[in-house]
Amino acid sequence: MTATATNIGLDGVIAAETKLSAIDGEQGQLIIGGYSLEQVATQLQFEELVYLLWYGTLPTVPQLKAFDIMLKRFRQLPDNVLDVLRVAARQQKQPMDALRIGLSVADLDQQELDSNALSCLILSRSASIVATYQRLLSGDPPVAPDDSLSHAANYLYMGSGVRPTQTTAKGMETYLNTVIEHGLNASTFAARVIIATQSDLLSAVVGAVGALKGPLHGGAPGPALEMVFEIGSAENAEPAIRAKLNAGERLMGFGHRVYKVRDPRADVLAAAAEALYVNGQQRAFYELAKTVETVAIDLLAEYKPGRRLQTNVEFYTALLLHGLQLDPTFFAPTFAIARVAGWIAHCYEQSKTGRLIRPKSRYVGERNTSIAPIALRSHLNLLSAERN
Amino acid sequence: MTATATNIGLDGVIAAETKLSAIDGEQGQLIIGGYSLEQVATQLQFEELVYLLWYGTLPTVPQLKAFDIMLKRFRQLPDNVLDVLRVAARQQKQPMDALRIGLSVADLDQQELDSNALSCLILSRSASIVATYQRLLSGDPPVAPDDSLSHAANYLYMGSGVRPTQTTAKGMETYLNTVIEHGLNASTFAARVIIATQSDLLSAVVGAVGALKGPLHGGAPGPALEMVFEIGSAENAEPAIRAKLNAGERLMGFGHRVYKVRDPRADVLAAAAEALYVNGQQRAFYELAKTVETVAIDLLAEYKPGRRLQTNVEFYTALLLHGLQLDPTFFAPTFAIARVAGWIAHCYEQSKTGRLIRPKSRYVGERNTSIAPIALRSHLNLLSAERN
Repeated sequence: MTATATNIGLDGVIAAETKLSAIDGEQGQLIIGGYSLEQVATQLQFEELVYLLWYGTLPTVPQLKAFDIMLKRFRQLPDNVLDVLRVAARQQKQPMDALRIGLSVADLDQQELDSNALSCLILSRSASIVATYQRLLSGDPPVAPDDSLSHAANYLYMGSGVRPTQTTAKGMETYLNTVIEHGLNASTFAARVIIATQSDLLSAVVGAVGALKGPLHGGAPGPALEMVFEIGSAENAEPAIRAKLNAGERLMGFGHRVYKVRDPRADVLAAAAEALYVNGQQRAFYELAKTVETVAIDLLAEYKPGRRLQTNVEFYTALLLHGLQLDPTFFAPTFAIARVAGWIAHCYEQSKTGRLIRPKSRYVGERNTSIAPIALRSHLNLLSAERN
Repeated sequence: MTATATNIGLDGVIAAETKLSAIDGEQGQLIIGGYSLEQVATQLQFEELVYLLWYGTLPTVPQLKAFDIMLKRFRQLPDNVLDVLRVAARQQKQPMDALRIGLSVADLDQQELDSNALSCLILSRSASIVATYQRLLSGDPPVAPDDSLSHAANYLYMGSGVRPTQTTAKGMETYLNTVIEHGLNASTFAARVIIATQSDLLSAVVGAVGALKGPLHGGAPGPALEMVFEIGSAENAEPAIRAKLNAGERLMGFGHRVYKVRDPRADVLAAAAEALYVNGQQRAFYELAKTVETVAIDLLAEYKPGRRLQTNVEFYTALLLHGLQLDPTFFAPTFAIARVAGWIAHCYEQSKTGRLIRPKSRYVGERNTSIAPIALRSHLNLLSAERN
């Protein structure tokens, strides 16, 4: 027997060296591709940031132009993708399932692509799949992509049929940039495990989408805004949140297993969200959300002293995406169409190591000497049940 | 900085406690579901063994009957699966891709299924997808399932259109039983990472299929028999193998990173394979394979003393599946339709822990202070290239 302890969650195990992001949870700092989050979120186009993560440097003007052409080449969804999305919509499949299903068949119209082209196909079509599925679920016809629009703007356009304003396009771009990459979360790790066998990028990304779907992943900002709607008015914030905390409920949108201070992504998203709530009623909702946040943080400090629970990325993600008029059921898939760029970057990094990821298991079962004939088994099962 | 070393392959890390299998590489022993491989491979129907892994006990007669009915309920592929498989076949997609694609849409004809039913759907339709894709790639029409046949026999039937003999059905069943489960290999681990987020079984299995596709996974028995074909005659075995070893080539079908003695699965598969090679020419091929094996082991001991390289599961898998008239391109997907039962069993086990799998990464990138304007970047890239 070995003395090594079982570590089911792989807590504290360092499974990769990466140039993609550095998370400092104690300081509340995030570096993406060598630059602070605050810079990459607001100063770069999404396409530039993707280029940085995939190829290791920021693109020059001609590099960005060529990359952009390649991305746009794949925006249009082929018929076989549209067909399965229509079937999925008829069955009311969840949007994350629709993304997994659509991506699975997303390269069926192509002959063998090199990894650059396949990466661009996956990135472009992820966005087109999610946008188109929004349309289909609402009973609306798909919208063809518009090559005059950026990736972020075109995603909004294909989902709504409405040409985005500069403000809404910038809001979506800031969101995509902010959540593009965040270390070895479960979906990214799933992608690395798959690509490490020398499988292909699409297989790895499809696996990652499956992992991101899980509620434990933490990439699901849907419920964070529900509390704001429930509370409804500033004066109701304190009694409503006290009631929740007294009942032992967890406040969605607060606390993160890595960040012990404010999640650096929260401020970036808060600023982008604010620009979307301009007129009277919208503005009032934004102010209410800010009030709820302040009250929640104060009361969390009172009810859970020492836990340092702060607003997390989900709270402002919800506020931003709500401001962009996305339905909460599409928050997680919108997260996915950003993170897919990070998954692909991690696949490139993992592939360079040439290493298979293969931990061990510890056997804790029985070592029986013989199989009972089937006719005798009910009696044996009973005996065994009595023993337990 | 932390003193913890980076462990990219997770070597020696114990990431799960399992009742599904125990591998003793030093003794060459394998326990599956509490019983020795030798027993489960030959004394159980595949359906009984699946039941054991999923539910923890061998089924009674009525339990097995109910389970069998549920499995058969899902054998027929719905139109949307057939449609995407036809598109995949037109594009000459690899069979492992076809399995991933077909499985991705395999539950689109169903409303929400409970996990028992979904598990049965995945198991049954995996086999039907691979068998049907064999037909489509050859330009043959799909074959409808036959409910009078067992899972193993029906798989052979749907792939070939020919009703299997008792011997061939038993050969396939022994194969499926033998490779159903083997600890935390990369595909099984991928399934556990995905399900650990509380995602769904189909997402986990689709991810695992993607991992199994990779050539580093080791579940790819295609090339193992090529050497036997190349060598062609018993007298050519020694010179041909010496030539390979002198040239530094690796002998496919020999050596395993876990088993230091003979892989226990090899004998079980060898016995099942032998029964398939009965008449003159077939028998001669089997004898040749045995001769190649003996010579290879002797020469490996001579060329690589102390390495204890033995015949591994790939060699006899190839011999067995060739005896069942499967094309080598379908060896890996046939492996997958067995292992899918193990993946699902691991998903049940992982889910019970309630634990997310989330290791850490170590940042080894730069910490730049500012983003260069795009117009200045070509100059900067050049400088940076010169520095490296």
